[in-house]
Amino acid sequence: MTHFVHRTSTRLADGRELIYFDDTAGTSRDIADPRDLPVVENLSQIRYDALLGEWVGIAGHRQTRTYQPPPDQCPLCPSTAANASEIPASTYDVAVFQNRFPSFVGSGPDAESSPAGLFDTRPGVGRCEVVCFTSEHTATFSHLPLARVRTVIEALIDRTAALSAQPGVAQVYCFENRGAEIGVTLEHPHGQIYGYPYVTPRTAQMLACAHRHRAATGRNLFADIVSGELADGSRVVAQNQHWVAFVPFASRWPIEVQVFPRRRLPDLMALSDDEKDALPPIHLEVLHRMEGLFDDTLPAITGWHQAPVGPGEDRDEFWLHLQIFSIRRAPGKLKYLAGSESGMGAWVSDVTPEATACRLRDVEVSMETRP
Amino acid sequence: MTHFVHRTSTRLADGRELIYFDDTAGTSRDIADPRDLPVVENLSQIRYDALLGEWVGIAGHRQTRTYQPPPDQCPLCPSTAANASEIPASTYDVAVFQNRFPSFVGSGPDAESSPAGLFDTRPGVGRCEVVCFTSEHTATFSHLPLARVRTVIEALIDRTAALSAQPGVAQVYCFENRGAEIGVTLEHPHGQIYGYPYVTPRTAQMLACAHRHRAATGRNLFADIVSGELADGSRVVAQNQHWVAFVPFASRWPIEVQVFPRRRLPDLMALSDDEKDALPPIHLEVLHRMEGLFDDTLPAITGWHQAPVGPGEDRDEFWLHLQIFSIRRAPGKLKYLAGSESGMGAWVSDVTPEATACRLRDVEVSMETRP
Repeated sequence: MTHFVHRTSTRLADGRELIYFDDTAGTSRDIADPRDLPVVENLSQIRYDALLGEWVGIAGHRQTRTYQPPPDQCPLCPSTAANASEIPASTYDVAVFQNRFPSFVGSGPDAESSPAGLFDTRPGVGRCEVVCFTSEHTATFSHLPLARVRTVIEALIDRTAALSAQPGVAQVYCFENRGAEIGVTLEHPHGQIYGYPYVTPRTAQMLACAHRHRAATGRNLFADIVSGELADGSRVVAQNQHWVAFVPFASRWPIEVQVFPRRRLPDLMALSDDEKDALPPIHLEVLHRMEGLFDDTLPAITGWHQAPVGPGEDRDEFWLHLQIFSIRRAPGKLKYLAGSESGMGAWVSDVTPEATACRLRDVEVSMETRP
Repeated sequence: MTHFVHRTSTRLADGRELIYFDDTAGTSRDIADPRDLPVVENLSQIRYDALLGEWVGIAGHRQTRTYQPPPDQCPLCPSTAANASEIPASTYDVAVFQNRFPSFVGSGPDAESSPAGLFDTRPGVGRCEVVCFTSEHTATFSHLPLARVRTVIEALIDRTAALSAQPGVAQVYCFENRGAEIGVTLEHPHGQIYGYPYVTPRTAQMLACAHRHRAATGRNLFADIVSGELADGSRVVAQNQHWVAFVPFASRWPIEVQVFPRRRLPDLMALSDDEKDALPPIHLEVLHRMEGLFDDTLPAITGWHQAPVGPGEDRDEFWLHLQIFSIRRAPGKLKYLAGSESGMGAWVSDVTPEATACRLRDVEVSMETRP
């Protein structure tokens, strides 16, 4: 089924792009940003960490970013006379704009070429965007109507395509941080999209494993994991015709679910209409199960893992998937990344994935089928 | 100079080892543990994360571990009539005991052999110990007398040797988590020692980089980094005859200092007496500079990076170093690991390492030369 979304691209006062994705018709999108907004000086760079063989972003201008503003000064709410926000409109469905304090910004050659020596610094090119899921300040993603979640998917596809086409962007990551416990500085429901100037460490590591598995077995690593999880079943939490959701076999987090499409797709742009339609119900079901696990908030990170940009064997091997995880380990208790995790990269979890999956399946979920 | 330490090994009621490292003479160490202590069932396992090619520890029995007890019930204080603690003595200098809720425990073959398929589970063998730096509950490591820090070094060397000799231990990590913001559940000043059944991801990554650098240049990676930092100087924070401390070129944390010995050593056991004597002053100086940066607490992780256990080219290439880092990014503000870091392994820092090094050098430090 084709989902109707009306797309309008505009500019904010300092030249940043603002794009409306409207699934309700008839809203005028011709209100200009009335602010006198200084252009934020961009000091982004990336540096090569020769000890670990990874790029690290350094964005010195971000220390001054907006930090927990009062609700009536929310920069993601529709503008009012008393609050000239980032969105000069009386309402919106889904809106995306360039982050005023980006970690990466501008075009350029990407960093995929080998670093020049042990102390290599490059401009932090790329693009960072903010995705507002709804104009309602106190809403949460998990309680949006299914149709709105479907609109968010269209917005993420649009932005993945746009950022992938920007010279210097090597990979696009769509994610949501949720909860003050995870460092969220704006409570209005929103996600982010990062266009990185390099393939991120986690993705590079997955691809290295996938290529090793291909060389050893002739098969795709992700395919073998998905079919293994389906055959075992003990960690499967939800599934439908196009998607399967499970707690990973070696999960690092107190609560973690990964959602894979049943066929290999490199990224969100490759989804069929049927796959897009089947995604909101399972995504919200998984969130409701996770939220129902403890009588407490669910500080969580949700992220879409996509193949690196452009053609190549990496793109032919990667398998799109959604990862949702929380640091909530019990009511009132969080999982912290202390010496073993942050110092050594050695995760120790307190719960078995099978026990978590069992408890997630036992959560009673009443999926309202809102329009 | 030889530092005198008297070592006494005893057993707790449930059979766990307790070792006293006394630098003051004359304390009797023959008091038995009076408790009737049940043996904690060990459910540790490690699982292979085939998507990332790393082992993950799963320790289901740790959910019930001691959580922020009141000060008069501290399990690390010397025992009293009202508090039968883990240390059945009226006082102590440095004490080490096996963790009652270990992430890894027991002997066995290590996991260095290739995983058997995509869903490989093994017993979580190894050993986890607690190091009490002082019997004073409200002390901090950074304000211990130099001689006591020297005793801690002897204890860490002793334990690195013992854990390295245990069948199944592939690597030994000595570290301290400090501050509730980093998840510390016991405020009494203490560190931990982990004997892992596998080479940790960070170490494996450093070794892979070191081997690549050797193949490309014929030189040692760590040597080139240390000499590069000394030649540049802009990130150097402190140095003495045997040690040099600098903010790493591509530091990921708001405050991070690494302290390297001037010659290549695989681990703490290889330190000369002169190197051991020169370590406490620079270690405490760096801590005092870090603590002086902001008018707020310093939640921090301190860890000793050592070569994997046993002979081999990894051990010949690795270079012992101390890493100290904090998530404090400003007074009242912490660095959180959100979507980019926890989801993608892609760090974005808000400060340049040169600016941090400059501010660390500017902190006024009065090193009391306590006995």
